[in-house]
Amino acid sequence: MRKTMRAVVKTHDMGPGAELRDVPIPEIGPGDVLVKVEKAALCGSDKHRYHWEPSMGTPNFISPLIIGHEMSGEVIEVGSEVRRARLGDRVAAETHVPCGTCIQCLTGDLHICHNLKVLGLSRDGCFSEYIVLPQACAVPVPEGMPPEQTALLEPMGVAYHALSKVTVAGNSVLIVGCGPIGLMSIQLAKILGASSIIAAAKHSLQREMAGKLGASVVTTPDPNEVKAAVQEVTGEYGVGVALEMSGNPTGVETAFDSVRKGGELVLVGMPKAMTFDFQKYLVRKELRVHGQHGRKMYNTWVDLLALITSGIVDISGYVTADLPLEEFDRAFDLARGENHIKILLTP
Amino acid sequence: MRKTMRAVVKTHDMGPGAELRDVPIPEIGPGDVLVKVEKAALCGSDKHRYHWEPSMGTPNFISPLIIGHEMSGEVIEVGSEVRRARLGDRVAAETHVPCGTCIQCLTGDLHICHNLKVLGLSRDGCFSEYIVLPQACAVPVPEGMPPEQTALLEPMGVAYHALSKVTVAGNSVLIVGCGPIGLMSIQLAKILGASSIIAAAKHSLQREMAGKLGASVVTTPDPNEVKAAVQEVTGEYGVGVALEMSGNPTGVETAFDSVRKGGELVLVGMPKAMTFDFQKYLVRKELRVHGQHGRKMYNTWVDLLALITSGIVDISGYVTADLPLEEFDRAFDLARGENHIKILLTP
Amino acid sequence: MRKTMRAVVKTHDMGPGAELRDVPIPEIGPGDVLVKVEKAALCGSDKHRYHWEPSMGTPNFISPLIIGHEMSGEVIEVGSEVRRARLGDRVAAETHVPCGTCIQCLTGDLHICHNLKVLGLSRDGCFSEYIVLPQACAVPVPEGMPPEQTALLEPMGVAYHALSKVTVAGNSVLIVGCGPIGLMSIQLAKILGASSIIAAAKHSLQREMAGKLGASVVTTPDPNEVKAAVQEVTGEYGVGVALEMSGNPTGVETAFDSVRKGGELVLVGMPKAMTFDFQKYLVRKELRVHGQHGRKMYNTWVDLLALITSGIVDISGYVTADLPLEEFDRAFDLARGENHIKILLTP
Amino acid sequence: MRKTMRAVVKTHDMGPGAELRDVPIPEIGPGDVLVKVEKAALCGSDKHRYHWEPSMGTPNFISPLIIGHEMSGEVIEVGSEVRRARLGDRVAAETHVPCGTCIQCLTGDLHICHNLKVLGLSRDGCFSEYIVLPQACAVPVPEGMPPEQTALLEPMGVAYHALSKVTVAGNSVLIVGCGPIGLMSIQLAKILGASSIIAAAKHSLQREMAGKLGASVVTTPDPNEVKAAVQEVTGEYGVGVALEMSGNPTGVETAFDSVRKGGELVLVGMPKAMTFDFQKYLVRKELRVHGQHGRKMYNTWVDLLALITSGIVDISGYVTADLPLEEFDRAFDLARGENHIKILLTP
Repeated sequence: MRKTMRAVVKTHDMGPGAELRDVPIPEIGPGDVLVKVEKAALCGSDKHRYHWEPSMGTPNFISPLIIGHEMSGEVIEVGSEVRRARLGDRVAAETHVPCGTCIQCLTGDLHICHNLKVLGLSRDGCFSEYIVLPQACAVPVPEGMPPEQTALLEPMGVAYHALSKVTVAGNSVLIVGCGPIGLMSIQLAKILGASSIIAAAKHSLQREMAGKLGASVVTTPDPNEVKAAVQEVTGEYGVGVALEMSGNPTGVETAFDSVRKGGELVLVGMPKAMTFDFQKYLVRKELRVHGQHGRKMYNTWVDLLALITSGIVDISGYVTADLPLEEFDRAFDLARGENHIKILLTP
Repeated sequence: MRKTMRAVVKTHDMGPGAELRDVPIPEIGPGDVLVKVEKAALCGSDKHRYHWEPSMGTPNFISPLIIGHEMSGEVIEVGSEVRRARLGDRVAAETHVPCGTCIQCLTGDLHICHNLKVLGLSRDGCFSEYIVLPQACAVPVPEGMPPEQTALLEPMGVAYHALSKVTVAGNSVLIVGCGPIGLMSIQLAKILGASSIIAAAKHSLQREMAGKLGASVVTTPDPNEVKAAVQEVTGEYGVGVALEMSGNPTGVETAFDSVRKGGELVLVGMPKAMTFDFQKYLVRKELRVHGQHGRKMYNTWVDLLALITSGIVDISGYVTADLPLEEFDRAFDLARGENHIKILLTP
Repeated sequence: MRKTMRAVVKTHDMGPGAELRDVPIPEIGPGDVLVKVEKAALCGSDKHRYHWEPSMGTPNFISPLIIGHEMSGEVIEVGSEVRRARLGDRVAAETHVPCGTCIQCLTGDLHICHNLKVLGLSRDGCFSEYIVLPQACAVPVPEGMPPEQTALLEPMGVAYHALSKVTVAGNSVLIVGCGPIGLMSIQLAKILGASSIIAAAKHSLQREMAGKLGASVVTTPDPNEVKAAVQEVTGEYGVGVALEMSGNPTGVETAFDSVRKGGELVLVGMPKAMTFDFQKYLVRKELRVHGQHGRKMYNTWVDLLALITSGIVDISGYVTADLPLEEFDRAFDLARGENHIKILLTP
Repeated sequence: MRKTMRAVVKTHDMGPGAELRDVPIPEIGPGDVLVKVEKAALCGSDKHRYHWEPSMGTPNFISPLIIGHEMSGEVIEVGSEVRRARLGDRVAAETHVPCGTCIQCLTGDLHICHNLKVLGLSRDGCFSEYIVLPQACAVPVPEGMPPEQTALLEPMGVAYHALSKVTVAGNSVLIVGCGPIGLMSIQLAKILGASSIIAAAKHSLQREMAGKLGASVVTTPDPNEVKAAVQEVTGEYGVGVALEMSGNPTGVETAFDSVRKGGELVLVGMPKAMTFDFQKYLVRKELRVHGQHGRKMYNTWVDLLALITSGIVDISGYVTADLPLEEFDRAFDLARGENHIKILLTP
């Protein structure tokens, strides 16, 4: 085997950009696997790191680092103590690397490990030809799942985890923000039995897809438009559930404003600090609010794979571009525009 | 208005049969409404009472009594203290009449009121031209809902309540027994995102409908066939959820046997006393078992109506016969056979 | 019976103060009871209304209005449709008056009724000789419970409801703010099996009581002191649960900062609008946050009365002054100081 | 180090008894620790295996095997991949050995692993001088915890896990069966805020301890006595929660009979097959029933250790005898009588 590989390295943590470099292929420990990356996908947090938007999802970035964390690949080497994956397995990467010994890990919350490492943020990521994954982060997928779909399980897992925190069945659901995770949440909310889905999306391509994926009503993120849509669907009450997936302070306030008394919210987007009226929006309405970071390891994976394998969830419609790894600059450029949902990189 | 009405009265509690009688139209109190019955439907428990099968759902039957409890109608008189229904409202009847003062009523479990009265069992039912309902049991439905569909909300509410007790989304679900509530559970499990649904049904018409409504695999209730289906779908594990809706001891054992360790069951059917191995089937597998009686007042109604109003749940396909009230004997005869799902009576 | 009664009336909603007036004794409807007030208690929200601090718990105040809402009394007249209370019953008042017909009321959340009326805020309160209560808000208490204790069930119910939203058993609990509800939360957290309780209190009398009631560590509200206490008790992790009961923006931030990843908060205090970093404090830690308003009707009442009746919860130690109704000005003056926990008014 | 150790070996699975043998000290793998056993304790399931009562907790016993599973000890050798325990750590053994790869293990239910191995049942146990534990089953305890207390964490964990499945706070709790786990459940139910505790115990020593540990009422297991006690405490309703810890069919029926509509049960005891009326006892009352097997890994351990470390739970009062390992025959003989709660063996 070759000794080096191509990788997209963020060489410093002081400004935008990244470099394609030849770096050594990493070595595995007894609990790791080496994975040949087949497809990688751009996430919003990658964009923040590439373009260097410090307040947005980049805390504790350690440079130099290979960025990227959504991916599929093939296991080509297996450590001696690995029991969950085998040579030749096709796997998706779980981004969150748990320590296995903290209180969170010991009580079933590996994904919010007290000592969490994150692929592409505090540990080398997947915009490269190979990656070492601890067995805890190499999730085997059913044979025959196309690599370009496997690479999207991670963000769809965020959407699924969000929906699993609230009552979707028979409920009215507002989704603020229709990036890939927002759109996936629409699709999943429909499949899980929401009685109505209101989606607020910034771009027209997003709004078009939101409608196709099952939204009952689609609006722009303008608070007045959202308010009108919520009233149209729920009358004077407001929705039972809101998912905040825009990371925009106005979106956060819109979400809180739209939920009826006793309702629930999940906050997935990562807004900067903002002014907020806890009394009005949270205490008096007795809301239940769930912050969210990642996916449940491994309930999310097990359930989502069951739904995909049985043909109930179709994950095939989100990719709008697939570029060679070396064209990562162009990929990040496209990702800034309004014409793409999910962009892949192929090493 | 006339002073009397026709009603199907079970005149004694010592054997099969019932009589069509002219009885006084009942008077309402300040908290009641008088409803003109538009459609009534036969339930399995009505059959037990009509044919007098004492071990099956007939405890504490008080004669003489008008039987029947699934119905739709129009509110034609309203008591002075009634706030939840208005003259002219179309309503479905909630079968369970709560006292409003016991611990269960005070803590949100009206449907399992300590002093529960049940329409057609311990209080006059709806196989008649008119019925008095306390406002707690007259549930207004959206304008335009056809009466023959409204009359089925009560049994579909049982199915919905059963599914709301367990994790359906992304889970494998076994439904044992495909009477109307079993079939409705298949339809709802599909809509609420089950990853796979196995249905065990006695009659071929039921099996045909089970497939149409969304079951992934349909079998007879033979334990070996069910076991094979469960293995086909879940491998060595067993299903995550089983709903027992047959009331047959073999069905109960099949349900427990089919659930994987840590899984859940809902028992809706009403079996007679049977031999059971709690150690093997319940303790060692650490199962969670939910007995069920009725519908949550009023969460079930609110959610189910939202799903029907939005067009997600279609309740129109279950009625296979609609007879005049006076032909109730023939209706109960048809209900014993294999060629009907739901039979209506029209006063 | 006399036709008029003395009452503390807030005659306008434009400034501080209230007046003792002679007003007509109100008349009951068929679903109401008339209660002779035995003891009333001052709540923080009464203070906000009396002293007219508009941002703090006074939205939608309707004048002129009798203020006050914590109370005990005797039922001296019963409406014809009342079933939950009887002549001669000793009752506590539930402050929240539900409409009985909205979605929240129909689904078990009477206390956050969409059309909620609140005693002393949007409907006449209890700083008077008599009060009309709808039966939904007259909660009978066990015979022999002293009126000065019965009057404290309402605030203790807030504390109990807060604790019932989170996992107390075996968990570390931080309570920020030690007014009466904060102190009661300490007592209850201890009784419900918290493994450790950290209390942050402003005044020395509060701190002294916090220790007596079961706090493991007591600090001032200074964020650095709280941080040191949390580290002392939980090491690097943070507490599993925080209850925010100060209504102070700094208290809110301290609460969020103190909870470990995956932990829970209940926000009971009513802060004014503030700057907040949802990303840092809520999303990345995947916290679960519960707004709270009032008590669960009637689970809170049932459970709390069971604990008091069995002698497990002792509610006798909170009253530090008991003044005649006409001395309400002095009561509100004392309530501003640091030397009182709970002040009663006796009509 | 020596090459052999003394161990209590059940040499066959066809009858009562066991033998003290010299056997090789087992070798550890990279993920294991070697523990020098300090104290071991007799559990009811050990008694079933020793006395060979096949219907009671002995399925799949593999001979020859070292029996015993409750223990404390010191880690004296650590595998290269072990991260959760260190040389010199004092540990308790978790009896349930998970595979780490099945659905249950992947979704947080390690204790009911699909491929579960059990110390002393399907893998060598702890009635010996040394034992190999996979790191998943070696739970470090705080420094200074006496070994005779550490050895009791496993059964107390069963009690804690049972109580964590139900609502204890403010609830009435019936505990049927007062072996060590039943008694520990009384102590814990008291600490977790039960409003009343009814205990049914066979032997007078158990009844005496039940009262000391916090039971409000103590009875024999006679169904009529239990019924009278339940009525005395809860009136016409029945208890909110019942814990079945006797494994006796009559106890199971008593537990179901004692719970009010909508209440909960946990079944921990391991009864043989029995006649049961699901309709009457479970369906019509809409009960929620939890089977239980073991402890939650590791929520139970984390919470219980926090309560013990903080001095809230005192685990010191259960041991009534402590014999040298070689006197295991006498220990099992004493365990059959009425004069002991918990018996230890010291290697």
